[in-house]
Amino acid sequence: MKAAVYKGNGELSVEEWKDRMPEEKEVQIRVSYCGICGSDIHILQGSEDHRMQLPSVIGHECSGTVWRVGSKVERVRPGDRVVVWPVKACKECFACKEGYGHVCQNLKVRGIETEGAFQYAWTLDEEALVRLPDTVSMLHGALAEPLAICCHVVKRGNVKAGDFAVVIGGGPIGIMTALVAKAAGADVLLSEVNEKRLEKAGEMGIRTVNPVKENLLETVKDLTSGKGADVVFETSGSQPGVDSMVQLPKVHGTVVLVAIYGKPMLVDLKQLYYYEKNVVTARMQERADMEQAITLLAEKKIDADKIITSVLPLADIRKGFDRCMDRNGCEVKVMIQCGADEREEGKA
Amino acid sequence: MKAAVYKGNGELSVEEWKDRMPEEKEVQIRVSYCGICGSDIHILQGSEDHRMQLPSVIGHECSGTVWRVGSKVERVRPGDRVVVWPVKACKECFACKEGYGHVCQNLKVRGIETEGAFQYAWTLDEEALVRLPDTVSMLHGALAEPLAICCHVVKRGNVKAGDFAVVIGGGPIGIMTALVAKAAGADVLLSEVNEKRLEKAGEMGIRTVNPVKENLLETVKDLTSGKGADVVFETSGSQPGVDSMVQLPKVHGTVVLVAIYGKPMLVDLKQLYYYEKNVVTARMQERADMEQAITLLAEKKIDADKIITSVLPLADIRKGFDRCMDRNGCEVKVMIQCGADEREEGKA
Repeated sequence: MKAAVYKGNGELSVEEWKDRMPEEKEVQIRVSYCGICGSDIHILQGSEDHRMQLPSVIGHECSGTVWRVGSKVERVRPGDRVVVWPVKACKECFACKEGYGHVCQNLKVRGIETEGAFQYAWTLDEEALVRLPDTVSMLHGALAEPLAICCHVVKRGNVKAGDFAVVIGGGPIGIMTALVAKAAGADVLLSEVNEKRLEKAGEMGIRTVNPVKENLLETVKDLTSGKGADVVFETSGSQPGVDSMVQLPKVHGTVVLVAIYGKPMLVDLKQLYYYEKNVVTARMQERADMEQAITLLAEKKIDADKIITSVLPLADIRKGFDRCMDRNGCEVKVMIQCGADEREEGKA
Repeated sequence: MKAAVYKGNGELSVEEWKDRMPEEKEVQIRVSYCGICGSDIHILQGSEDHRMQLPSVIGHECSGTVWRVGSKVERVRPGDRVVVWPVKACKECFACKEGYGHVCQNLKVRGIETEGAFQYAWTLDEEALVRLPDTVSMLHGALAEPLAICCHVVKRGNVKAGDFAVVIGGGPIGIMTALVAKAAGADVLLSEVNEKRLEKAGEMGIRTVNPVKENLLETVKDLTSGKGADVVFETSGSQPGVDSMVQLPKVHGTVVLVAIYGKPMLVDLKQLYYYEKNVVTARMQERADMEQAITLLAEKKIDADKIITSVLPLADIRKGFDRCMDRNGCEVKVMIQCGADEREEGKA
């Protein structure tokens, strides 16, 4: 059975992998599509080896069909269309006990700390599965996981209809955050320095600004009659992004930290203080966010076809990673077709 | 009429000052006591000259008695015992319109942007006044303003009974924040490097730790069974304080920024991100915080006599500033007796 096997030190190859039968509470799904996530790129760059049991199959943004089920599986049955919620919580730590299992203190992300989805058939615990309605194609369904991240981000930012939201950074998460915030009724401005990405976002109906060419703060002031943004999503992870995030919110406005900052950043805390701005953080997603993402896809509130910019077969996964990492490219989401249901779906 | 007149460039002298009669909506109060605030120290260090119309009288943490009233004054009458809320809001900016006048975009702090309290009689708008009940002495009443800052800080931190709170920094605001949080039912740990301040805080019944001698993070873990703090107040303004503030909160816990950071600080945002910790900021205070502070004083929930570590006559105000600025000292609050009611109060 073919799988994209990660061996550590940035080495990834498509080769034979074990076909593991599900245990009592496990399910084996035939994987349809799996998207390449920023985390997968970090894995390929070798920075996450310490988290993993190598060699392992990576990938977690997937859709698929239940194939084999263990003897005590209750939630799903063979043939069910599903997506995977990658959060595997311990249920015993303080985070879990307080209802924040998605940031469990012993969190395992399926497809990173456990085996993942870039394979023909993935065996995992049934708790991971979220049902995908027939109205969402398998290809679109594979967007549910990253879209749920953005639903979580927007929920943490408490975005309300009529709010003015700024998204700093136009990568996949930035673009999808902008789309989810728009779906929530916000007026959204996306700030990004890469012109190709700006063009791509513009094609999706997102208002954009290039902060290298225009003054971002003045643009936000102009668009809000001087008031400032209700909420600012920092997805860039860059120092200029952090510099802007403290300036842009209105009085008592909110900054949502979305990026993962590899090192301590210089933050002008005084800018937050003067107008009692707040900072919240958003990590992973809750099951309810997965459900919301699926609903957004089912109701066509998100234009999945524009977000999915490439679909490649599993054999070409390395090419998919290269496209994602091309700084001059403008991929939003690269999908890998893992092989199961091109027949079922009749499309790639 | 004697006043402490600030002339710019750090020059302060006690000399004759105009006895200005109140206009229609103004009141002249005979000042009883006025505390020396950190802001006053910054003024004396010359860093706030740009905010002021010089020469001017400074001071804003005062108690006093209404003496003369303008023809259209409605809220108070001569003889009323009062304290001063220093927030002078424009009522027209976005902050004011959204109900956040205490962080007005055109904020004037009485005693900084306007004339202040270190004088025998202070003429100001009646809106500034908050009534002081007979059960609070004039000396204690002069604590209402800084105590209200701490009420605001604790309110912003949403402290609940049973919470574990850490206060980083044992200056006057840190100590009073610890006391207000305790009064709100929190279990409080104060972290401070100055042994004399630690001793002073200990005398007030505050649990303390010296982070130079003990590991602060481990101490907090030990005291919370590994959970972390519900809320952390950063009042030190120091880099070690900022380093600690992101580590100490529990999952979904809160950091309250209380200090004013003169320059951008290095913040390890990843520490906030992992457990979705939040950061809120607290500046100035609302009228309701002034009322709450007065209630705390009236109900003896705060041991004002321990907080007030010196009382000096107006003529010795410079000595008062020197005591505050003595890095080896352990003053909490230095009060200046401005002269009006030693007869009324019978104490100094």
